[in-house]
Amino acid sequence: MKVLSILGSTGSIGTNTLKLIAEFPNDFRVAGLCAGKNADLLARQTEETTPEIVSSGDEKISAELQSLLRQRGYPMGKTRFVHGVEGHIEAACRPESDIVVSAISGAAGLLPTYRALENGKSIALANKETMVMAGELMTRIAEAKQLPILPVDSEHNAIHQCLRGGRRNEVQRLILTASGGPFRNMPKERFAEITPEDALNHPTWSMGRKITIDSATLMNKGLEVIEAARLFDFPADAISVVVHPQSVIHSMVEFLDGSILAQLGVTDMRLPIQYALTYPERRTTPMEPLDIFKQPKLEFFEPDMEKFPCLRLAYKTLATGGTAPAVLNAANEIAVEAFLNNELAFTEIPRVIEAALGAHSHEAADDLDVILRADAWAREEAGTYCRSARK
Amino acid sequence: MKVLSILGSTGSIGTNTLKLIAEFPNDFRVAGLCAGKNADLLARQTEETTPEIVSSGDEKISAELQSLLRQRGYPMGKTRFVHGVEGHIEAACRPESDIVVSAISGAAGLLPTYRALENGKSIALANKETMVMAGELMTRIAEAKQLPILPVDSEHNAIHQCLRGGRRNEVQRLILTASGGPFRNMPKERFAEITPEDALNHPTWSMGRKITIDSATLMNKGLEVIEAARLFDFPADAISVVVHPQSVIHSMVEFLDGSILAQLGVTDMRLPIQYALTYPERRTTPMEPLDIFKQPKLEFFEPDMEKFPCLRLAYKTLATGGTAPAVLNAANEIAVEAFLNNELAFTEIPRVIEAALGAHSHEAADDLDVILRADAWAREEAGTYCRSARK
Repeated sequence: MKVLSILGSTGSIGTNTLKLIAEFPNDFRVAGLCAGKNADLLARQTEETTPEIVSSGDEKISAELQSLLRQRGYPMGKTRFVHGVEGHIEAACRPESDIVVSAISGAAGLLPTYRALENGKSIALANKETMVMAGELMTRIAEAKQLPILPVDSEHNAIHQCLRGGRRNEVQRLILTASGGPFRNMPKERFAEITPEDALNHPTWSMGRKITIDSATLMNKGLEVIEAARLFDFPADAISVVVHPQSVIHSMVEFLDGSILAQLGVTDMRLPIQYALTYPERRTTPMEPLDIFKQPKLEFFEPDMEKFPCLRLAYKTLATGGTAPAVLNAANEIAVEAFLNNELAFTEIPRVIEAALGAHSHEAADDLDVILRADAWAREEAGTYCRSARK
Repeated sequence: MKVLSILGSTGSIGTNTLKLIAEFPNDFRVAGLCAGKNADLLARQTEETTPEIVSSGDEKISAELQSLLRQRGYPMGKTRFVHGVEGHIEAACRPESDIVVSAISGAAGLLPTYRALENGKSIALANKETMVMAGELMTRIAEAKQLPILPVDSEHNAIHQCLRGGRRNEVQRLILTASGGPFRNMPKERFAEITPEDALNHPTWSMGRKITIDSATLMNKGLEVIEAARLFDFPADAISVVVHPQSVIHSMVEFLDGSILAQLGVTDMRLPIQYALTYPERRTTPMEPLDIFKQPKLEFFEPDMEKFPCLRLAYKTLATGGTAPAVLNAANEIAVEAFLNNELAFTEIPRVIEAALGAHSHEAADDLDVILRADAWAREEAGTYCRSARK
C-alpha cells in the first residue's frame, strides 16, 4: 500500500489522480489533500478519502470546508485542517506519506514539493515550475537521498519510458512533442486579436486555464524543455521540440545509433499518473487503450519560433541558466493572468517576459531564497510592465 | 573485438553487415564467410576481410572462388575453403567466432544457425525460417546456454528495443508493422493477374527476391508473427499486425497500462544489424538519422486477411504448433519459386500452402530430424501441387 499526499487535489491532475486510485483500493490511500479555493470539491474529496490532513488556500476557505464537512456529518476528529503555504508544506511532509503528487499550478507548487523531497518523499511531479525554478536543487537532493522524481506531464512521462531503451550516454536527444496549440495555422498578423476565449479552446488536451494559455503561446513547451533539461540532465541543444498536432505520440528519445523510441497512448492524464504512481511496475489500466486504427494520420512539423517567441525565450533562459528560468516563469504567470483578465494583448505576453529578463541581474540558482527572491522580483517587474501595456 | 561468421554474406543482410563493420574496424573482424553462388562477390569479400574460413554453395563455386582469388594474388594459405551444408556448419562453428550473423535466405539457414547456437555462439538472426521451423528448440538451447538470439529483422529488432520499456509480464501485446506490400490497394479480383515483376516492386524496403514476394503476399508478416512468438515467447493472440505503409515505425509493444512504445528509424538494414552486433551497447551510427520533419503522414490500417490469406494461414499454423509452421514455410518456398519462374499464379501461392498443411500429419517440433523431415515432405507435396496447378 502506497500512501499519497496530493498537492492540488481539486485541479485536473488532482481529480484524475483520485479517480485513478479509486480503481486500486488495495494499492493506494490518501493521507493528505491540498487545494486552493474549491471548498466544495475539497469537502467531497475529504469525505471520500478520510485523509489525516487537509490544507486549503487560506483560513476562510478552511473554515468553509470544515463547516461543509460538519453539516454532512464528517468525523472531524479524523482529519487535521490547515491552510496556506505552511499548511501545504505540513500536508506534503506528513509522515504517513510515501509519495507526494505535486500538482499545484504555478510557482506556488515549489515550496511544498521541495520540502517534501527534503523530507524523504518520492515525487510524482506535475508541477513543472518546481523543476523550471529549482531544478538543479531538486535533482541534487533527489540524488543525495536516492529518491525518484517521476514526471506526470505526459511528455516527460513518455521520455522517462523511452529512456529505458538505452543507457544515459547512448542518448542523442530528447524530442518533446507539442500539439502546436490552437493558433498553429493562424497567420502571425492576426495574433494581436486573440482573445482568452480563443486561446482556452485547446485542440487535444483538457487542462486548467493557465496551462491552456501556455499551450497557445508554446510557453508550456518552453517550460517543458527546461523541465526536461533538469529532470533528465540534458543541455538545451540535446532537446528538440516537434509539433505533432494529433498528440498520439507523447514524446520520443533518439539514441546515437539512429533509433528513435516513441511512447504512444490515449490523451488521458491517468495514463502518466498511473505510470508515475506504480513505477517501477506497470499495472493493468482501467482505461480503454489507444485504438491505433482509429487515429488520424500522424504529422510532424518544426515549431515556428518567430510566431511563438515564448519558446525561443525559454530556450534562451535555459542556456543562461541560474535564476533566468525562474524569472521567465514568474513573468509569464503575471502576463498570462493579465491576458486572462483581458488586461493584456496575446502578443504582449512574450514582451512582458523579455522585458523582465532584460532587467534582471541573473544569479546562480543554488539556494531556494535566491530563487524565490528572483521570482518575487520578476512578478513586480512584470506587473509594472503589464500596467503600462494595459489595453 | 567481436569476431563474426556471416552466413549469407553476399545477400542483402550480408553485404550490409560487411559495409557496417567496415566503419568499426577496431570492434569487429570476420572469421567466416558463407555464401551460395556469387563467387565473384564472395572473392571480393574474402580479399577485404581475410577470414579463416570461406564456405560456398557447392564444390564448383568453391573452385571458381579459389581460382578467382589465386588470379588476384590472394594469400590462399590464410583461408580454408569449404562448401555445402557441412562447409556452412564448419564456418558457423569456427572456434574464433563469437557471433554468427544468420542471413542465409530460407530453410537452408536452419542447420548452420542451429549448430552455431549449440556450439556456444551468439546469434544475430536475420533468417526467420530458423525460428519459424525450430523456434522452440532454438530458444530452449539459448536459455540453457544463456546465449542471446538478437533479431536483425527490423520488426523484431524494434520489438526487442521496445520490450526494454517494461517487464515481460507487463506486456499486453506485440504489434508488428507491415508495409502492406505493393498490392494493398489493388482489388482482390485482379490478384490472379499479378506477375513476378509487379510483385518484385516493393514500396519501401530493398530486399531479396523471395522475401519481396513474401512481402507482397503478406507471408513475410505471417512468418514474422511466428518468429516473434518464438523469439519473445508470446501466444498468437498477443501478436497483432498493423499495416503502416510508410514503414517509419518499425514495430511496437503495448503494455498492460495502455502505454505503447514504438521504434522509429530510417529504412536501412544497417540500423538493426548494428543494434544486434553492438548489443547491449548502442554505438554512434555512420548513417544519417531519421529526419522526422521529412516523413510522410503516418497511417495505420487493419490487415485484410481475406485479400492476403497467407497471413491467416501463418496465424493458423502458429495456433496448431509443432511441425505446422515448418510445413507452411517449406510449401511457401516452393510456391514462391514456382511463381517467380512464371509457373504458378500469385493467387495459387496460398492454395499450395493450404493443400500441404491439409495433407500433413502434424508432430511435435522438439527434434531437428522431425522438423527437417516435415520440411522435406512439404517440399515434395507442394511441388506436386505446383505441377498440377501449373499455368
